[in-house]
Parts: sequence; structure tokens; C-alpha cells
Amino acid sequence: MDIDLPEVVAEVPTTFAHHEQALVANDGDILDALFHRDHRTLRYGATENLYGHDEIAAFRAARLPAGLARTLSRTVITAYGRDCAVASTLSRRPSAPSKLGRQMQTCIRLDNGWRIVAAQASLMENDG
Amino acid sequence: MDIDLPEVVAEVPTTFAHHEQALVANDGDILDALFHRDHRTLRYGATENLYGHDEIAAFRAARLPAGLARTLSRTVITAYGRDCAVASTLSRRPSAPSKLGRQMQTCIRLDNGWRIVAAQASLMENDG
Repeated sequence: MDIDLPEVVAEVPTTFAHHEQALVANDGDILDALFHRDHRTLRYGATENLYGHDEIAAFRAARLPAGLARTLSRTVITAYGRDCAVASTLSRRPSAPSKLGRQMQTCIRLDNGWRIVAAQASLMENDG
Repeated sequence: MDIDLPEVVAEVPTTFAHHEQALVANDGDILDALFHRDHRTLRYGATENLYGHDEIAAFRAARLPAGLARTLSRTVITAYGRDCAVASTLSRRPSAPSKLGRQMQTCIRLDNGWRIVAAQASLMENDG
């Protein structure tokens, strides 16, 4: 198993940045496209546990666009082999300064490009 | 990309069950062995964000063994290709019945077997 092959490392951050941009802009179409359209795609969010792309898309459609801006820190993207990567980051929103966000995404290279197949986002109380 | 190849699907639940057993038993040695010994291995826990196997092992060593029993629900294990899988589950502990646990692990087949390279565990208030 090769870890962090340069040609893979060069690709995945683009998907990650694309997701981040769409998340902050609350662009549901792009977010829907970035998640693998499959019933096995999972997303555990701050207050919801979504099983399958349909549930994830329904959540996006209902989401209010306010207060989504955030700054990231300690982002780590690691590529395992040629077709799998994990992107992890901490985040903070000015709209909720006492909370520290944590996000992990597993990305897989499918026939149509890199897609998120599993993601978890959660909040913990700010410890400094 | 083949998803859920039978021969891979037959392997990964063993690693998942091994982890679950060790977690409930607070067996740090087995948990340490199941996580890839690498500085890029990450674990975001309920109250801690651990970067690298050393930080994860230090957390395990300091963990109190009480109240770790839990029951799982809605467990989904999906294999992407031959060398990557994601295991996700919800959980509840009798010691904290008002909280719903969510756990996701990304597992990679390394030269020495399947190892967890990224994991997140978080709690949300019980919504029923």
C-alpha cells in the first residue's frame, strides 16, 4: 500500500476545496454531486445521521444558508493507494465561536472522479 | 471501482468486531494494534482530537475503564475496492442513555493486515 503518492496527493485537495467552497456557499447541487450517489453513502452531521445519498440531498435542500462561513485549521489529507483518501479538518464559525468543528471525509476515486462516500461532522465545546 | 466485493466484505467485519470487543474491554494493546502506527493516523473522539498514533495511544493509556459497555445499531460496513472500507455505526451506552453515539472508521489493507487509519466518534443528544 503506497501512502501519499504524489500524483494522488495532487488531486484530492481539489475535491476537498471544492466541497468547502460549496459548503460555505450552501450550494446543494455541488454538494450533491460531490457525494457518491449511492444508498451506502453515509453522512453523520452535527445533529443528524443520514443514510444514503437521498437523505443527504434532502438535508441539503432544507438547510438554511445563514452563518455557514468558517475558518479551517489542522487540515490533513492523506492518500491511501491510488483510489482512497481521507480528509480531516477542524473548523470554527464566527456564528458559533464557542464550538470547535471536526470533519472527516473518506473519498474514493470512482469512474466519474473522486467522490465522498462517508463523512462525519461534529462539534465539541471550545477548549481554547 | 468495485464496491462490496464478497471476499472483502467477508474480511472487514472481523476487524470491526475485534475493535468493538477491545473498546468495550478497554484493551489498549489491541486498540493500539488495530490503528495504523503512523503520524498520519487520526482519531477525533467525543472530547479529544488526536493527531498521530502516539496521541491516540496516550489517550487509550489514560482512559478509565468504567461505563464502556454499549449496544450498536444501524452498523454499515462498505468495501471500496480490495484495500479500503468504511465502518459506521450508532451506539448507546447504559451509562449515558440520553446520548446517541456515532462512530466512523476508515480501514485500509496494509501489508500487515487491515488497520484503522482515520476514525471519528461523537455524541449527540438522543432524539428518540
